[in-house]
Amino acid sequence: MIEPFGDEYFMKKAFAEAVQAFDQGEVPVGAVVVSGNKIIARAHNLTETLNDVTAHAEMQAITSAANLMGGKYLNDCTLYVTLEPCLMCAGALAWAQVGKIVFGAPDPKRGFRKHSPNALHPKTEVVGGVLSEECAELMQEFFRKKR
Amino acid sequence: MIEPFGDEYFMKKAFAEAVQAFDQGEVPVGAVVVSGNKIIARAHNLTETLNDVTAHAEMQAITSAANLMGGKYLNDCTLYVTLEPCLMCAGALAWAQVGKIVFGAPDPKRGFRKHSPNALHPKTEVVGGVLSEECAELMQEFFRKKR
Repeated sequence: MIEPFGDEYFMKKAFAEAVQAFDQGEVPVGAVVVSGNKIIARAHNLTETLNDVTAHAEMQAITSAANLMGGKYLNDCTLYVTLEPCLMCAGALAWAQVGKIVFGAPDPKRGFRKHSPNALHPKTEVVGGVLSEECAELMQEFFRKKR
Repeated sequence: MIEPFGDEYFMKKAFAEAVQAFDQGEVPVGAVVVSGNKIIARAHNLTETLNDVTAHAEMQAITSAANLMGGKYLNDCTLYVTLEPCLMCAGALAWAQVGKIVFGAPDPKRGFRKHSPNALHPKTEVVGGVLSEECAELMQEFFRKKR
């Protein structure tokens, strides 16, 4: 059983966003932002639909969460995302001073840890590998279908 | 005399955007995107106004230019920006595969070169230090007034 309001619980919500991206022909990455056990933002990758490389799930989730919070900083928030953030997203998460990041599948090629392991705010806690297999499989399925 | 359509010429246009940011109480960074000697996007930092850490000048310029070009990739474009891009913006410029980046003042603290010198696309040409003094002075003036 999945613990309510635990990391797996919220990663499932991010995964549901990733599935929406998949169904729209987008690279299937999803994210949610949680504050006080409440989801305050949901987003999935929309780079193709919006014709915009900046429309990663995390970027939209940050913008949306800040909009709801009425402040730019997300210190008390946790971002759940199905894939390890890229440099762009890590940089944005650093500016937002997000309290905690939980990611699903690692991204050895494009993930921030390879290129700039200290990209995040020093106070940001990072947890990786939550529902890693499901998240990675969805990505693999997407690229398999593309070929 | 400034050479028409040279790097200084377009940096002046980016600088004019930075001045607009300054006048709005925003950290004064401006950017333009040029394709075939034509400015196809102009933007300045709007993080305070939009309450959004992702609203850097470069990010908006990329989105706007892609919108106009009708394609996500900006291989044939040059981005002029008054300050060395941060990691977030460098990551976005990498995804956009921008052809050339010309920046004004270096940013030894937050600039991408300190944190991840290879953040950009390998084919992206980089020129730094164009109108560096004016760009840096505007930043210094902004932070002097803030104190």
